[in-house]
Amino acid sequence: MSDVGRGAEVLRVLRAVRSVRDLRPDPLPHDALVAILEAARWTGSGMNRQPWTFVVVRDRGALAGIAEASPNAGHVAHAGAAIVLVMDGDMPEITTFDEGRAAERILIAATAQGIASAIGWIPPAGRPAVRALLGIPEEKRVRTLVALGTATASGARTKAAPGTARRALDEVVRWERYA
Amino acid sequence: MSDVGRGAEVLRVLRAVRSVRDLRPDPLPHDALVAILEAARWTGSGMNRQPWTFVVVRDRGALAGIAEASPNAGHVAHAGAAIVLVMDGDMPEITTFDEGRAAERILIAATAQGIASAIGWIPPAGRPAVRALLGIPEEKRVRTLVALGTATASGARTKAAPGTARRALDEVVRWERYA
Repeated sequence: MSDVGRGAEVLRVLRAVRSVRDLRPDPLPHDALVAILEAARWTGSGMNRQPWTFVVVRDRGALAGIAEASPNAGHVAHAGAAIVLVMDGDMPEITTFDEGRAAERILIAATAQGIASAIGWIPPAGRPAVRALLGIPEEKRVRTLVALGTATASGARTKAAPGTARRALDEVVRWERYA
Repeated sequence: MSDVGRGAEVLRVLRAVRSVRDLRPDPLPHDALVAILEAARWTGSGMNRQPWTFVVVRDRGALAGIAEASPNAGHVAHAGAAIVLVMDGDMPEITTFDEGRAAERILIAATAQGIASAIGWIPPAGRPAVRALLGIPEEKRVRTLVALGTATASGARTKAAPGTARRALDEVVRWERYA
């Protein structure tokens, strides 16, 4: 494949990433999960701190418990797996930026392999329950997870939705100066 | 190409992303720049706020001015272009996470097209100068840029460096529970 073909294929996948919450709890192939974790592991970070641990949850009871603690991430209960991002507690501004970088790579690596995904937020009120469920110590931060799974039929339609969900290029881009 | 081939190609590019600061100031193809901006535009964000404007700087005087304001991002002076991420000022925690997501996609889209890149931080002391240079209003945040360019020979070696720069998979991944 030519460089142009390679570039086009990656751009196609970048464009195809969607937040899909309508998931089926089918188990995910282990190799696909490892490929996603490798993509996350390779994320760059400020001062190469790599301020993360990725906790992979497939246990149905634990997924249900996380969903119960995270009202906006109820879809986790139906996911094949969730990757919970456990972050170092210091330098919160840099760490939060790096957390976004790692989460995005998880979504992209999943999409590339035909696995549906959605970021979920664990609200402050739900974090003690998630810490207890997963054995996460106090000095670590936990806020973000990525649910992974097979899209249901309605989830697959979300995935194919037309491109009206983003501001136009000439709205979000300025050349040379902001104003 | 099969789905497996597609997935493998994307994973290859995700693994190939490197921070390359040894850049040459060659102009970048306009189409490649637009493809990178499209990848950034499509980034998902909390509540789909899309809290960003991407300012593309190619003017050599402006690039030199940004480099002067950002001691740790001196490489911008030799870049073909820089994309400055101008972010909405509210909801800083969510905005910073989303900023990381967009920056990561810029790096990936650049890498896919054979363009070298490196994130740069504009320190608080340098932000007034960058605001003045680019006409960025007070209510917006500006902190992050991505320098883009052609790697020098030494930059290209960085890019090919062996995989010793990240913690091993079994150090960064836990199965089912953190501890």
